[in-house]
Parts: sequence; C-alpha cells; structure tokens
Amino acid sequence: MAAFKTVKGFRDFFPEDIALRNFIFDTWRRVARRYGFVEYEAPFVESTDLYRRKSGEEIVKQLFCFKDKADREISLRPEVTPSLARMAAARQRDYRKPLKWFQIGSCFRYEEPQEGRTREFIQFNADILGDGSVAVDAELVALSIDVMREFGATQEDFVIRLSTRELWKGFLDQHNIAPEQQPAFLQIIDKIERARPDETETRLAPFGISLGEVRAFMDTADSDHPVFAELKANLTARGLWDFIRIDATIVRGLAYYTGTVFEVFDLKHDLRAVAGGGRYDQLCSVMSGGAVDMPAAGFAMGDVVLGILLSKTPGAQFKLIDSLAEQTRIDVSVIIADETKRLDALAAVQTLRAAGLRVDYSFNAAKMNKQFQSAEAQKARAAVIFGNEYPQVAIKDLANRQQTNVDIAELETSLLALLKTAALGPLVA
Amino acid sequence: MAAFKTVKGFRDFFPEDIALRNFIFDTWRRVARRYGFVEYEAPFVESTDLYRRKSGEEIVKQLFCFKDKADREISLRPEVTPSLARMAAARQRDYRKPLKWFQIGSCFRYEEPQEGRTREFIQFNADILGDGSVAVDAELVALSIDVMREFGATQEDFVIRLSTRELWKGFLDQHNIAPEQQPAFLQIIDKIERARPDETETRLAPFGISLGEVRAFMDTADSDHPVFAELKANLTARGLWDFIRIDATIVRGLAYYTGTVFEVFDLKHDLRAVAGGGRYDQLCSVMSGGAVDMPAAGFAMGDVVLGILLSKTPGAQFKLIDSLAEQTRIDVSVIIADETKRLDALAAVQTLRAAGLRVDYSFNAAKMNKQFQSAEAQKARAAVIFGNEYPQVAIKDLANRQQTNVDIAELETSLLALLKTAALGPLVA
Repeated sequence: MAAFKTVKGFRDFFPEDIALRNFIFDTWRRVARRYGFVEYEAPFVESTDLYRRKSGEEIVKQLFCFKDKADREISLRPEVTPSLARMAAARQRDYRKPLKWFQIGSCFRYEEPQEGRTREFIQFNADILGDGSVAVDAELVALSIDVMREFGATQEDFVIRLSTRELWKGFLDQHNIAPEQQPAFLQIIDKIERARPDETETRLAPFGISLGEVRAFMDTADSDHPVFAELKANLTARGLWDFIRIDATIVRGLAYYTGTVFEVFDLKHDLRAVAGGGRYDQLCSVMSGGAVDMPAAGFAMGDVVLGILLSKTPGAQFKLIDSLAEQTRIDVSVIIADETKRLDALAAVQTLRAAGLRVDYSFNAAKMNKQFQSAEAQKARAAVIFGNEYPQVAIKDLANRQQTNVDIAELETSLLALLKTAALGPLVA
Repeated sequence: MAAFKTVKGFRDFFPEDIALRNFIFDTWRRVARRYGFVEYEAPFVESTDLYRRKSGEEIVKQLFCFKDKADREISLRPEVTPSLARMAAARQRDYRKPLKWFQIGSCFRYEEPQEGRTREFIQFNADILGDGSVAVDAELVALSIDVMREFGATQEDFVIRLSTRELWKGFLDQHNIAPEQQPAFLQIIDKIERARPDETETRLAPFGISLGEVRAFMDTADSDHPVFAELKANLTARGLWDFIRIDATIVRGLAYYTGTVFEVFDLKHDLRAVAGGGRYDQLCSVMSGGAVDMPAAGFAMGDVVLGILLSKTPGAQFKLIDSLAEQTRIDVSVIIADETKRLDALAAVQTLRAAGLRVDYSFNAAKMNKQFQSAEAQKARAAVIFGNEYPQVAIKDLANRQQTNVDIAELETSLLALLKTAALGPLVA
C-alpha cells in the first residue's frame, strides 16, 4: 500500500508552518481588538442556496458543494460574508449598533491551485454593520493599514487602492446605462488592467462606450468626488493618507458592493491584492429575505498572498522569528543525571509546570550530553540537574553557562528569579 | 424569500460564544506548551481512503464524504489522528524524537445531533510519537488532568478511567480467542456499561465466554498488571494518582488502540467522556504503507461536552468571565463633545491605538450621555473627552468617576499611567 498524500490544493501545517499561521492570527486579532472589534465565527458548511442568492448560479462552479446523506445541497464556505449577513440579520436586535465584528478561519474554493492560491485558505474578515457613514469606510481602511504595519510592512511594501462605485454610477447614468446593466460594465473595469486593450474594446462595445472615454473618465475622476474629500480629511487626521492611491480601476469583482471599495496591494512583487473590501449596503436585506435592512462594509485579508509578502519583508521576518520562538521554546529542561532520582524529578516537573513554566525532560534514561542537546534544541533558558546530591539540585543558566546548587525546596523560587533576569523574560502565562 | 438558517448540526458562534471558544483554545494551548508540546494542523479535507484504511468501510457511514468535481472521493475530517500519522510518517526524519505535537481545530461527523453531539465540533489533540514507553502514557494522562484543572475543574468534577488493552489480551489469549477476533470482543466490552446484561450475553456467546467470567475478570484485574504499577509510581510522584480509577471496562471503541487507554470522565453529570485516548503503536505503519514504524500515543478532547461541563463548574465560570472581559472590553472610549474637534479626536485615537491600547469612539455626532453609554457597554476603563477646551482634554477614570484635564501632548503618558493603576491592569499587547 502506498503512503497517502494531501488532497490537491490542501495544506499540511507542520510546527514551523503553524508558527507562521499563529503569528498571522495573533496579529490580526490584536489589531482588530485595538480597533474595538469583537470576534465571531460562522459555520464551515452552509446551504448552497446561501451562496446562490448572494452571487448567482455561476458561483457554484467555484464551490466545494455536494449533497449530504439527506440530499441537502451544502457547500464548504468560500467566504464568510454571506454567513455574517445571515447571522447579523437574525440577531441584530441583541447588539448595540454599529456591530464591529471580526472573524478568522478557513475558507474553500474549487480553483486550480497556483502560487498565492490554494483550495483551502484562511481569511481575516472585519466588518462594521448598522452604520452607513463614510466614517465607517475610513475606519476599515485604517484598520487594514494598521494590520499591515503591525506585521512590519511599511509604505515601501504596500498601498491602498481606493475608489467608490458611486463614481462609476454617475458616469454610467450619464451614458444612460440602466442600473441592472451596471454590474456587467463594472466587471469589465475590474479586469481592465490585466486584459488586452482590444479585448476591453470588444467587451465595452455593447454599452456604446469606447475605451478612450473610459480612460479619459478615469484620469479626471481621481479626486473630485465628495466621498474622497471626507475620506481624505479623516485619514489625513490619522496620518494615514500617504498610504492611499485613488484608483478608479478598483471596483471589486463582486456584484454586491455599493459604495467605497478598496484593496491592499503589494507594491514590490507581482502578487494579487493582499486584501480587499468595501461597502455592501443591500446584502443583509437580500440574505434576510427583506426582513432586515442594515448598511454594512468590510474587508477580507487572506493568509496565502500575505504569507508570501511577509516572507519577502524583512520587518515581518524579525517579528516572525520572535513569535516562532515564543510559540515553541521551553523555559526549563529537567536533566535526570541519576535514574534513581527520576520520580523526584517528575515531582519537580509537575511543580514547575503548575507555576506556569514550560518544562520538558527525557522519558527514558539518556546520557547527560544527549539531554543537554535536547535542552538546546528546545531553546530552554535553564536546566535543572537531578543527580546523586539530591535533595540538592543544580540550576544551570543556559545563556551564560553559570551553575548554582540549591535545595529542592528552593528550586521554584530560584528558577523564577533566574528566568526573570533572562534576556527574553519568562514565558509564565 | 425566507431567511436562511444554519445547516443541521452546525453552529453559529456569536461574540459571546466565541469568547467561550477562545477561552477553551487558550487554555488547551497554554497547558500543552507547558508540557513541551508544539502545535501543528492537518487539512480539513482528506481522501476518504485515508479513513477507510484506518477504520474500515463502516466508518464511511459517519463521514461527511463526497466526490469533488474531478471525481475524487474526499471527506471532511472526522478526527485528525489519521492525518497526524500520515504527516509524521512523511516527515519524521526532520524532527527529534519523540514528537510532542498538539492540534486544535474543527472535525465533522455525520451523526444525529443531540446534547453533547453536533456535526461540527472542535477537538484538542495531543500526541507523542516515536517513543513506546509507559512514561509517555503517564505524560499524556498528566496533561489531560492539568488541562482540566486549568479550566477550574477539580477532583470533585472529573476522574480518569484508565486501563490497558494488554489486560484483555492476556484474558483472551487464555480463552484461545485469535488476535484478529479480539477487536470484536473489545467492542462488546466498550458497550458493556450501557447495554442490557442479556444483550451482552448474546454478543459474548460466539466467543464461548460468559458475562460472569468477564465480570469476575474485571473485578480482579484492577491493579495486578505491571503497566499499572509503573503508571502509579509515575503519577503518584506528580501528585496526580488520586485522579485515577483503574477500570477494565475502558477499552475505547476504535480498533487501533494497542496498550494503555484512558478517558476523562465527568463525575457530576450524565455526560459522555470529555476526552479519551491511548496507545496506537501500529497506526503510523498502517498509514505509511509499512514505510515508517513509529510507536505513538495520544488523546483527544472535544469542545461540546467540555463546554457543557464547564457551564456547570463554578471554578470554570469565574475564569470564563475574566477571559470574556479580556477578549471583548476596550481600554479607552474617546468622547467627542464638540464635533469641530472630531479630526483632533481621530488623531488621538490613532496615537493611542499605536501605543497598543484598545480604543473606540462614535462614528457620528451623538449626545454625550449616549457616548458614555457606549463606553460603559464596552467596559472601557477610561474616557477621553474632546470639547471646546481643546488642546486641553479631559481624562475620566470610569472606575472612580474622577476627571482630570491634560494637554493633548500629555494624553498618552497620562492615560497609560492611569491604566496601569486600574484594577485589572491595562490590555496593552
């Protein structure tokens, strides 16, 4: 029988991978809480109709969808926004408005795997529901910037490309494009950067608008919309406007955006957007069958493109190294030099762990140097040696190799004192 | 159109639910790290054959399994142990032995939902691979006890029911039951507590063993096996033996256990096991097609039964309340008394958040008392009031209602000083 492999597009997270994932999670969570957001989580599985209603039948091609044993059509979630709208609509009376909610978890899309794209990926979602003001949009843009900065990224590394769909709405109304046709037009704008000009011309033809007209509009549209003035004043006050580029090509592909739209874009590498979002004022109404009408805006940031960007950002790498150490290192390695003292050593292991220290030891009789190698591999800060002088034990500071003998009754106190003076401080939790 | 609901057996996690989930996650993670475990994660989706090979065709009935668009038979993971065995076998040369690995994440089973049982549930898995000694089994039992104690549970709340399959192996060998028939016999023992005696007799008949013989063996088997002596010495040294009950009815249902088996069992309520595990020395070999032979042992603890137990354990409730506050409260509420000072307030919001504080404010003009109500709802420790005396602002300690005026240049320093003296300490992260 052959060994098993991961299913195409799915990932194993070995300890070194999970350390990066936890670094990303902790950063998302910390910054979101600084902004006054509270966490929620949606189910991994929803009825396929939930995604159909939001995005139309076409979305089903990109879903991990299947029938369960009771013939229900269900899907692994490709995103959490439809679930959020469902949840918020169901329980909105129970919470003060606006809701500032964030979520972190896996999503699934049936796409061809490539760099920056896996079938399972993790998203951070931050949304504000129940307030339709531009101040909310600015808060979300600011959060996306501060998340990136908390990772160690700078103005050299990323930019926010910002626009509003209202801009195009004005343009399209002038050209007598009916509202129901406008999403199809915006799909063309969404792809304008990556499509050949002649392709774009062909797609624009049914609308009776030339690429020249589109380009001329984009060149002049940059700053004369009142939404931009309010966003600029708000983000300038926070010292964040230098991160922003008004860019009329940003419309976001999905049909449900209604106002401000933005993307966090990698400046140095040819990656796709690290994050994207905007205002979607109709979605709660759509998802609740008209029962709840609640303005909303939010953005999502994925872990895969972000991980690639961070791997090339020195500021992020230094932070990651600290985080990895914090997650995996131990405080104390208990060295059993005399096997007759093993049970005494186990008693000490228990006491020190109960004091909050991270403690490890060898399960079997092993040579001293092998035990010290383990201590080093686990980046222990101190070793405690149980030998034939017991109840005297030796504490060794593994940073400076100094060794002192103490009575077992003094061990916890002495060790805590030593760890307090250690370079990184103790990991007592 | 009707509003959508969650799919049967799946759960929404509203902010108050996620606070409990995070409390559970943080506790699992903290205690596992004290024991020197490092984290990993497996994919949510695996090939259905992975579970067939481990558990036989019968398992498929309990799986969320389906064919993807390329006709692959895949399943939402019902547990992570098969993935762990696959991963560890593939990469074992890259790590020092033994591996001490833990994991936290959702699993999925197609079962009828009932109290303590949902179709999506979260498990904590802790496993030690590459060492077959009883010392490893003791370490895992100790970890399961310390996890429960960290939640605030005591000897009044839970017990470890412990046994070894070797016990029954001796008994079955004596009765000339062939090794390949022994798992079927152990399935009967696994259900003996909940089955009617006449049912058990009927099931035992093909083995030529009476219920009386089984009961007599169980009554005498309690302590005379050498594995128990070693476990007792080890766990007594740690002060943990009082949590243990040797119980020969504990065999664990799954076929793959080979040695020590144990369950964490709720003492006060009629719930099922909170956690269970044991030694499974053949699984890595089975999952790697014979390529890697690595002894292993571990246990899993689910969130659903645990959550019910914690909701009835006062010690846990006090800790949960603290955790909930830590997760959702803010430090500072910025009150905008004079709308002409809004941009100055935004600048201060940015500065305070950059200093690591959790800060919130009203997006729109609002009456002072409404803003103070929000501050209270978010359990802010201090308010900063931006009024017409700006650049003087007022800092209000929301614990004792004392108010002091400071220049905006002094705000951060004054606020940090105030929060350091606040009852719970600041949330600076």
